[in-house]
Amino acid sequence: MPSAYENLTKTFTRLSRFGHLSAIAGWDMMTMMPPGGSSARGEALAELSVLRHEILTAKEVGQWLNEVDPAALNDIERANVSEMRRVWQQAALLPASLVEAKSIAGTRCEHAWRQQRPANDWQGFAENLKEVVKLSRREAEIRAQAGGVSRYDALLDMFEPGMTRAKLDNTFGDIRQWLPNLLQRIVDKQARETVEVPVGPFAVESQKQLGLAIMKQLDFDFNAGRLDVSAHPFCGGVPEDVRITTRYNENEFISAMMGVIHETGHARYEQNLPKQWPGQPVSLARSTAIHESQSLFFEKQLGRSAEFLRLILPQVKLLLGDQPALETTNFIALNQRVKPGLIRVDADEVSYPAHIILRYEIECALIEGDIEVDDIPQLWQEKMQSLLGLDTTGNYRDGCMQDIHWTDGAFGYFPTYTLGAMYAAQLFQGLKKALPQVNELLGEGNLQPVFDWLGQNIWQHGSRFSTRQLIENATGEDLNPVWFRQHLENRYLRGI
Amino acid sequence: MPSAYENLTKTFTRLSRFGHLSAIAGWDMMTMMPPGGSSARGEALAELSVLRHEILTAKEVGQWLNEVDPAALNDIERANVSEMRRVWQQAALLPASLVEAKSIAGTRCEHAWRQQRPANDWQGFAENLKEVVKLSRREAEIRAQAGGVSRYDALLDMFEPGMTRAKLDNTFGDIRQWLPNLLQRIVDKQARETVEVPVGPFAVESQKQLGLAIMKQLDFDFNAGRLDVSAHPFCGGVPEDVRITTRYNENEFISAMMGVIHETGHARYEQNLPKQWPGQPVSLARSTAIHESQSLFFEKQLGRSAEFLRLILPQVKLLLGDQPALETTNFIALNQRVKPGLIRVDADEVSYPAHIILRYEIECALIEGDIEVDDIPQLWQEKMQSLLGLDTTGNYRDGCMQDIHWTDGAFGYFPTYTLGAMYAAQLFQGLKKALPQVNELLGEGNLQPVFDWLGQNIWQHGSRFSTRQLIENATGEDLNPVWFRQHLENRYLRGI
Repeated sequence: MPSAYENLTKTFTRLSRFGHLSAIAGWDMMTMMPPGGSSARGEALAELSVLRHEILTAKEVGQWLNEVDPAALNDIERANVSEMRRVWQQAALLPASLVEAKSIAGTRCEHAWRQQRPANDWQGFAENLKEVVKLSRREAEIRAQAGGVSRYDALLDMFEPGMTRAKLDNTFGDIRQWLPNLLQRIVDKQARETVEVPVGPFAVESQKQLGLAIMKQLDFDFNAGRLDVSAHPFCGGVPEDVRITTRYNENEFISAMMGVIHETGHARYEQNLPKQWPGQPVSLARSTAIHESQSLFFEKQLGRSAEFLRLILPQVKLLLGDQPALETTNFIALNQRVKPGLIRVDADEVSYPAHIILRYEIECALIEGDIEVDDIPQLWQEKMQSLLGLDTTGNYRDGCMQDIHWTDGAFGYFPTYTLGAMYAAQLFQGLKKALPQVNELLGEGNLQPVFDWLGQNIWQHGSRFSTRQLIENATGEDLNPVWFRQHLENRYLRGI
Repeated sequence: MPSAYENLTKTFTRLSRFGHLSAIAGWDMMTMMPPGGSSARGEALAELSVLRHEILTAKEVGQWLNEVDPAALNDIERANVSEMRRVWQQAALLPASLVEAKSIAGTRCEHAWRQQRPANDWQGFAENLKEVVKLSRREAEIRAQAGGVSRYDALLDMFEPGMTRAKLDNTFGDIRQWLPNLLQRIVDKQARETVEVPVGPFAVESQKQLGLAIMKQLDFDFNAGRLDVSAHPFCGGVPEDVRITTRYNENEFISAMMGVIHETGHARYEQNLPKQWPGQPVSLARSTAIHESQSLFFEKQLGRSAEFLRLILPQVKLLLGDQPALETTNFIALNQRVKPGLIRVDADEVSYPAHIILRYEIECALIEGDIEVDDIPQLWQEKMQSLLGLDTTGNYRDGCMQDIHWTDGAFGYFPTYTLGAMYAAQLFQGLKKALPQVNELLGEGNLQPVFDWLGQNIWQHGSRFSTRQLIENATGEDLNPVWFRQHLENRYLRGI
């Protein structure tokens, strides 16, 4: 008779195979599917979702998780069971009626939002959002009770296991103190510099060739992945076949190029996850924030560094044609431009954390019941003013209605963006300690040691360690925002 | 409590949704997937296959099929149940051990064949094929007993419900009598004509634009489908989102172009299947031969007609550049060239039936136990000589080892190609009766009445009627090879 552990691994292998089909059909939906396929695809994916939920929450799975004997397992297997338990609890805790109600409310809110945002219709949006918040609070309550934690912590744990509000308050509180001033100093400094903007058009096919050339330089494995186009860049697919996307604008090539570099960071993590335990949870990426740390390591730490920009510049000129704005100093300045704005997804890496802290503070108070949906616009306005010095009065569209995350109740997700940025800076610092000549290597175009270090310290471990352990093993300390601050000061004030 | 019929429709809707995912992931595998994704994709698709088989053969399905009360159903529902029963019997009749053994033997035979064919290794191939034949005979035996029919008829019924060996012997026997002589007369006639071959290169992108332009002319719905590239052209996806493919050769554009026209025929059938009963078997295409009749109607009846070739010629010149070989008469002659050869997939429509009849006679005798695998080469040689006047002695590679169908035991499939060609000719004849001015309409580029007629007579009926009923309703008679013969004589001897 198979052991409880064997039954569990078999079940999770099966789930992983169905997850594979879901990932590929999801990728196809975003990149290839003609509009007419939408409704049938939605139904097919929902049916698969129901099936995966049934398999995961079947009562045997709970029994096997109870029966499994940790003493009979090795380290990896124990880590695997711990991941299985986490995933199972996430799925099994909520009553089906709540899952369904949340899904319906989320779909309704998101669907209406697509019209309400351009119409700047906060009142209409708020009505739907209230239902989503009500159900998310109920979800948080159930998860909080089961985990013996606060409501927001329970949601946070879904995206970033082990992270807590206390730790975030601490870290984000630190950033909040120095960021507005740092931002002002950088903006003042850059106001004295002129930057030329490259003049298009830049043919889509040439931009694609540039993206592919940079992916090659970043050692993307084309035998196990591809680059395509979608409305919003993403990294999808499965570790054996990673699908990244970008979008092209003929007038401006840097967004698409940086999109490719960002998604290549996600992709290399996926492509280099451990292969010894295929389909097992221990083989998967550690968390949303660690995933983002890899994309931001590639895009910000590497991609926007003077060394890397110098490295790719000849390719840029070759494929897009030379022009004055592609002079080296100007090209670097262009990629390091800081300009506070209303929109999160357009933000540079200095102002980005302000967008996140603002959202974190609001969603935290919302879930804990300290504020209500109607309080959001006022808070948004105050925080935007104090953090970025910008006014959003009456501009809901580019204010509290700009993101999709809250519409379907993904509360607890936003912090992972800035956690990722901080981990990326801390990892780069760790890399520098291990490899002091890293900047010289980058200058020579020798990126392999960087990838080797990431592979050994992050990628190969999958979910074997907690985020904290992983980061401590790699850098010698737990999350420390000082490295992110130092990175910003070095790059944007000291020019090093 | 839901009725047995309601339970059945719910189950088949679910199966259809999983079928959707299988179709899209299968399409992706052939068109998009990098090689490294192959093994994980294979496992994921196999897992889904097992699931679909389990759902279909669950004992409740058999019970519901017993319980369902035909008197309480309307015509459509009765046809739906009849299709459900057919699909269920196909899946449920075989013991799991035989399904598995056949799958393993088929995979082994096909895998080795990929090396053995280029190596002309008949002995090696025969060893594996014997196992496949042994298991296919066992399958045929089980299906034959359950259906009270002969062994070959039982297999034939899988691909072409209602078709029998008696009927095929009759029809193919008829063709066998006149085909070699007709072929000789056509070859002699064409030997007196010179045809110029267009000189490339023809850029792939231009060929693709040509394909898309012709698809548009053929009213392909781009809101519900797309055109891509694969090693072998096919039509996949789902009715709401039909994926067709072709392959390009820079030196020769007619193959890719005719591939597109052929697959567009399959696609338009799929895109215009009835939409009132989504996910139900009655909504699906009638049979393999009827599907092929639509692709051949598009490719041969329409696509290689002088009227249609004249219609698309300006597009060809516009996209690929003009040259002497694209002079009208030459372009038509080029697309109507007849040249008997060893390879089935390269055959023109006159010699094609000879390839099929040869295979039919051999596979029939093989399944019924009248011959053994070792007898195949000798029979192939004799039949190739008598049907096409060609010698294949010792050339197994371009003889009995050229096709993939037998490697995984798809005995009973080959006849559907020529049945499709005969149905296509008969349907075109039916269309001419209903619309005597069809050639004038084609000449004017007014194809809509043709599509309307196909839609009303074939597409909209899905699997509501048997193949025989469908053809009789459309053309006033059961399958009659005289129309195919007349079509060949008209086009290739009389030039009308």
